[in-house]
Amino acid sequence: MSVDTSAAQSPTIGVVQDKINVGILGATGTVGQRFITLLSSHPWFKIHALGASSRSAGKPYHSAASWKQTTPIPSSVRELIVHPCDPTEPHFRECTIIFSGLDAEVAGDIEAAFRTAEFAVFSNAKNYRRDPLVPLIVPLVNNPHLAMIPQQQALHNPPLKKGFIVTNANCSTTGYIIPIAALEKSFGPIEAIMVTTLQAISGAGYPGVPSLDIFDNVIPYISGEEEKIEWETLKILGGITENDDGLKVFDMHASHPLRVSASCNRVPVIDGHTECVSVRFARRPPPSPQQVREALAAYTPDAQALGCPSVPRHAITVHEEPDRPQPRLDRYYQEGAGVSVGRVRQCQVLDIKFVVLANNVSIGAATSSIINAELAILRDIVSR
Amino acid sequence: MSVDTSAAQSPTIGVVQDKINVGILGATGTVGQRFITLLSSHPWFKIHALGASSRSAGKPYHSAASWKQTTPIPSSVRELIVHPCDPTEPHFRECTIIFSGLDAEVAGDIEAAFRTAEFAVFSNAKNYRRDPLVPLIVPLVNNPHLAMIPQQQALHNPPLKKGFIVTNANCSTTGYIIPIAALEKSFGPIEAIMVTTLQAISGAGYPGVPSLDIFDNVIPYISGEEEKIEWETLKILGGITENDDGLKVFDMHASHPLRVSASCNRVPVIDGHTECVSVRFARRPPPSPQQVREALAAYTPDAQALGCPSVPRHAITVHEEPDRPQPRLDRYYQEGAGVSVGRVRQCQVLDIKFVVLANNVSIGAATSSIINAELAILRDIVSR
Amino acid sequence: MSVDTSAAQSPTIGVVQDKINVGILGATGTVGQRFITLLSSHPWFKIHALGASSRSAGKPYHSAASWKQTTPIPSSVRELIVHPCDPTEPHFRECTIIFSGLDAEVAGDIEAAFRTAEFAVFSNAKNYRRDPLVPLIVPLVNNPHLAMIPQQQALHNPPLKKGFIVTNANCSTTGYIIPIAALEKSFGPIEAIMVTTLQAISGAGYPGVPSLDIFDNVIPYISGEEEKIEWETLKILGGITENDDGLKVFDMHASHPLRVSASCNRVPVIDGHTECVSVRFARRPPPSPQQVREALAAYTPDAQALGCPSVPRHAITVHEEPDRPQPRLDRYYQEGAGVSVGRVRQCQVLDIKFVVLANNVSIGAATSSIINAELAILRDIVSR
Amino acid sequence: MSVDTSAAQSPTIGVVQDKINVGILGATGTVGQRFITLLSSHPWFKIHALGASSRSAGKPYHSAASWKQTTPIPSSVRELIVHPCDPTEPHFRECTIIFSGLDAEVAGDIEAAFRTAEFAVFSNAKNYRRDPLVPLIVPLVNNPHLAMIPQQQALHNPPLKKGFIVTNANCSTTGYIIPIAALEKSFGPIEAIMVTTLQAISGAGYPGVPSLDIFDNVIPYISGEEEKIEWETLKILGGITENDDGLKVFDMHASHPLRVSASCNRVPVIDGHTECVSVRFARRPPPSPQQVREALAAYTPDAQALGCPSVPRHAITVHEEPDRPQPRLDRYYQEGAGVSVGRVRQCQVLDIKFVVLANNVSIGAATSSIINAELAILRDIVSR
Repeated sequence: MSVDTSAAQSPTIGVVQDKINVGILGATGTVGQRFITLLSSHPWFKIHALGASSRSAGKPYHSAASWKQTTPIPSSVRELIVHPCDPTEPHFRECTIIFSGLDAEVAGDIEAAFRTAEFAVFSNAKNYRRDPLVPLIVPLVNNPHLAMIPQQQALHNPPLKKGFIVTNANCSTTGYIIPIAALEKSFGPIEAIMVTTLQAISGAGYPGVPSLDIFDNVIPYISGEEEKIEWETLKILGGITENDDGLKVFDMHASHPLRVSASCNRVPVIDGHTECVSVRFARRPPPSPQQVREALAAYTPDAQALGCPSVPRHAITVHEEPDRPQPRLDRYYQEGAGVSVGRVRQCQVLDIKFVVLANNVSIGAATSSIINAELAILRDIVSR
Repeated sequence: MSVDTSAAQSPTIGVVQDKINVGILGATGTVGQRFITLLSSHPWFKIHALGASSRSAGKPYHSAASWKQTTPIPSSVRELIVHPCDPTEPHFRECTIIFSGLDAEVAGDIEAAFRTAEFAVFSNAKNYRRDPLVPLIVPLVNNPHLAMIPQQQALHNPPLKKGFIVTNANCSTTGYIIPIAALEKSFGPIEAIMVTTLQAISGAGYPGVPSLDIFDNVIPYISGEEEKIEWETLKILGGITENDDGLKVFDMHASHPLRVSASCNRVPVIDGHTECVSVRFARRPPPSPQQVREALAAYTPDAQALGCPSVPRHAITVHEEPDRPQPRLDRYYQEGAGVSVGRVRQCQVLDIKFVVLANNVSIGAATSSIINAELAILRDIVSR
Repeated sequence: MSVDTSAAQSPTIGVVQDKINVGILGATGTVGQRFITLLSSHPWFKIHALGASSRSAGKPYHSAASWKQTTPIPSSVRELIVHPCDPTEPHFRECTIIFSGLDAEVAGDIEAAFRTAEFAVFSNAKNYRRDPLVPLIVPLVNNPHLAMIPQQQALHNPPLKKGFIVTNANCSTTGYIIPIAALEKSFGPIEAIMVTTLQAISGAGYPGVPSLDIFDNVIPYISGEEEKIEWETLKILGGITENDDGLKVFDMHASHPLRVSASCNRVPVIDGHTECVSVRFARRPPPSPQQVREALAAYTPDAQALGCPSVPRHAITVHEEPDRPQPRLDRYYQEGAGVSVGRVRQCQVLDIKFVVLANNVSIGAATSSIINAELAILRDIVSR
Repeated sequence: MSVDTSAAQSPTIGVVQDKINVGILGATGTVGQRFITLLSSHPWFKIHALGASSRSAGKPYHSAASWKQTTPIPSSVRELIVHPCDPTEPHFRECTIIFSGLDAEVAGDIEAAFRTAEFAVFSNAKNYRRDPLVPLIVPLVNNPHLAMIPQQQALHNPPLKKGFIVTNANCSTTGYIIPIAALEKSFGPIEAIMVTTLQAISGAGYPGVPSLDIFDNVIPYISGEEEKIEWETLKILGGITENDDGLKVFDMHASHPLRVSASCNRVPVIDGHTECVSVRFARRPPPSPQQVREALAAYTPDAQALGCPSVPRHAITVHEEPDRPQPRLDRYYQEGAGVSVGRVRQCQVLDIKFVVLANNVSIGAATSSIINAELAILRDIVSR
């Protein structure tokens, strides 16, 4: 497919029969349900295959899934038969793009099998995030990392023509890194970040957090989460360089070392991660709170200019009220595809501090994968 | 009263008729109810007078108060008549010590009137915390600040013999400053602190936070709270010096400048403030996490040695489990008179980070006032 | 206005300049905010005047209201100036219809003044619900009661040409009475109803229920609520008869005495009243659960046939899953304009029992007033 | 053991070495943790053996259990080794009494094995509640049903000398049946009961209800619960008669047929089941609300007179305030060993309605088993 600019600007390019068939792995889970909700009305994609565990395979979706969304199962999906997560299944073979909402326990092998079978795999799972050949993309931040895909295909055994894996970041990384990227774009390198998260229960999937553990409570620990934030931040904000062997490598923000310290908490909120962030800039003097506010509000990711239909109009909504953003009030704005920032002010220890809110099941999960796929199409990495 | 050591070591000194009469201002409010619950079985104090607004005055306590504690109103208090908050009321005149759980809107004038009338006032209100003559005391941290009282009395117009005001700190300051003080005691000055709080709704009093504002939500702002933590920390951790006029002044940690950055959040938890803290020590290299853990567990405040009956056996409980402390599980330990610390680990930006849990209505409010009064007795500042 | 059938069938009758100007009283409150959200995209109505207390009057809406909806303030309303609730205000004078979300403390006088000033007033307040001349209308149930309006106008002093008051029912009455009406329509008179409610906090308005009262709790009492359900049910389900003086009177279901017993509870749910209902039919044998299910699913209120644009496609959604309806999952279906019924089964004491879920802020409040206004237009009681 | 009256009146009969060794099955679960908390300070019983699944066996208790109580693990239990639930285990063999908090999936076989091995088994599980030889005992209601035990032993193959099983009732049955029994005692047979429950999440055990299912939600269904209430009520309130074969049988309230209709809901409350109850008496006219209040307050179960140490001073606390009982405020009164009743008033459909609150993990579970064991000792069914 060759996408010309005019087409890209219109989200309704093509006619219905031109829609791209997509498959969803882990379709009955929390992230899978979110994929279904978002993709059922997508202008470019058509849900064609649903994959889940053998326990669900063979059943119509409505009886296989314990549907937990606040809108009904889309009628186009309700009676679709769930298949095993196997790339040789006929329904999957008719797909071009695979979205994976699989649990990490099974995602590794299944996603690899789909890649080997020449599918474009967009994954929410953590398994390949640290793979030196797999782009870890927050679509409002670092889509140029898609440039790693040809090398991923070339070094595969056997080499691949169309198959690849792109992952999106952990939900708590995704939220706070968007304003961080905006600040680096405006003010140059950041050298230290402190982030304390207040994360929603939906981030743990279903059944996830037992109610007895989190009612009237805070759990000041989420296994592996702090390490994810600290590591993923470097991969996402860093660039791609070439090493002595002529191979492309992710440089982990090496040109300006960046220290990240994360403290993660689970709080009794259904959807929406709140993150208290403080940063120190390399540049002295640092920007003022007002300059930061303006830079955040003005941030326009490439994905917008390229014409991705799922990119929100405002990547970052800057709140002036002293008590915003709040998850219950702000998480659904723009269907959760952007992030909210508020309370931009000076920090007595680092330079500037602020609060970020991100919808962990939208921009923090399914929406990111979908925009990543849109970007891959617009950049001709997936042919239509 | 002269309290000898043996008496101090036994919480049951004296016989019942020797108990000290105490009055409670703001007795119908949230903090007042907590005072009543704690004092009704206190070995030294006897609740003798209850003060509240004119709306409540004249009524028996059980009909004046909208009792929200999980234990019934103590039978000794149930039928006590509530009086106006006036030091000339006969019931108050029979008291030696006044505990104030008044709202800040009215605390200023009323507490001043009781001081002028020669009462020892132990207050939870914020009004006098910044007064240069009023000790701001976290009883497990800085009871030597009681030494300011003679000057407070001498400079009063007219000079006072027995009357004074002592305040305790804001609930979120109180919790995290106990381990901070323990660390300074073991490892010398701290030069930077980042603290992000997840504060319980009971910290806002009653009716306090509307349920529609906090259900399934986080409010990333508590008016004035961050400034309180940042300022009170310096007063409490600092010393008392003499200025050129020979007057005692609080030095605000001047010998080693300390920067404090606080970010405060309200979360849907009933009782118990969780605080994510990161510190940088002056000393290089800084102590290791294990050294910090040991220093915290070993911390023994003066108030324990002095024999205050309300001081907990463990000022700081150090948790080894990765997911503790948690408010719902740990807030009632030792009746909330100590604090819990967990997750002591290295910080990528400062030196060491950890999580503190403090029961905001116990050690964060009423319990602190009560121990302050016990200290004042044991140090002969209040005569029995 | 004369509405012909074709117009009625199309919700987009007329062109934009023909939209009817409406005013909203109590515009800053919880119900007022819901009116604004719903009316901002209404095909027939245009928000033209906003009324609130003198504290808000003169301010632009966005600064007067503490907006608590999960969608932003509609841009068309954001800068509208709030006026006092006075029918002589120029902006109100340009309105035809007045929606009242006023608190009961002030609704009585203000609504009367607007009626006297010849406005059609559609009220959520309880003040006139028991007035023998005021229709108490649940729009999916008893719109024929609008026939009382001419007598209300004629007996007014001075007699009115256009002014009148119509109220809608209490939120907990509204939800459960829709399936009750459907059952009476299919199976004849019901003679006994037991209903136990589990009501959401938003039903108490804002600030409403303090969080300390309802977190981790149930309050088994809502002042006046049980009496409202028991009384309103009779007025709504009853007919209109003529007394000896030739006056129309509400007969309170007199032809078949109906006993209603209600038990009301507040539960920690944000939106959506759950109601456990059990009924005894006059007819023996009573209908079977399956007959009841079918009758409920088939229920088609007049308001649908008349072409009210805000009437939902399914007045009653019947759930087959054993654990539905649930407030969090089902309250937003059809924007909360219909009700959900599940668990239809036999009752060991009466005949049939089931569970109803109704969105208390939509069909239970603002949506009902709006449909009542649509009905009044379609029945030529309000001329356009 | 022969317990004389004076001993029974003193809960501290005997000296420590006389304490009865007890074992706890399912010791790591929710009910097991409650048993441990209650039994660690019991005047007659000493925790001697802990049983759990093979996954936990061999570990010290503190590392086997995911402790969720708000008080720490009792120091006497912390290091006890957990054993398999096998009556031949030496630690169990040294026990006289076995308390079972096992899940129903495994309770059937294990409890039978312990009975066969001549242990006195007091079970919370549902498996044997419908067994015609097993007493289903709510200790404040029907301890005379212990009289079935000799027949249970005699008909066992082989006949037993000491072994037997006694079950306690489902938590939601236990709470509401105490006032029902009090009313039957005062006013004669009840012929119809409607009960709608609002049940706490702890009733579902751990991990139990996923937080995503119950936050901001009501689940109007608990599998099997309504049937349990309806059936268990008849067994508990009925008597024991002899059939034609001379065998004792539970008469299921046969002398006065009783219809019970239950509707069960899960609500977001941690502990404490709230139950809205309405009853119809056989006697006409029925008692007045005031007579009912007095009868409830005066109710004195046999277990009190017999001297069971765990029986609360007030079996039923009658609240006069219109908005009580409430789970968060009243569930811990008397350590949850009694029940609270409020809102006693007339019912428009049946005779009298009221609200019951019962602590589902105390009187609704572990406390009932413990009192049942105390009763068995005092009645010489278990020899000490």
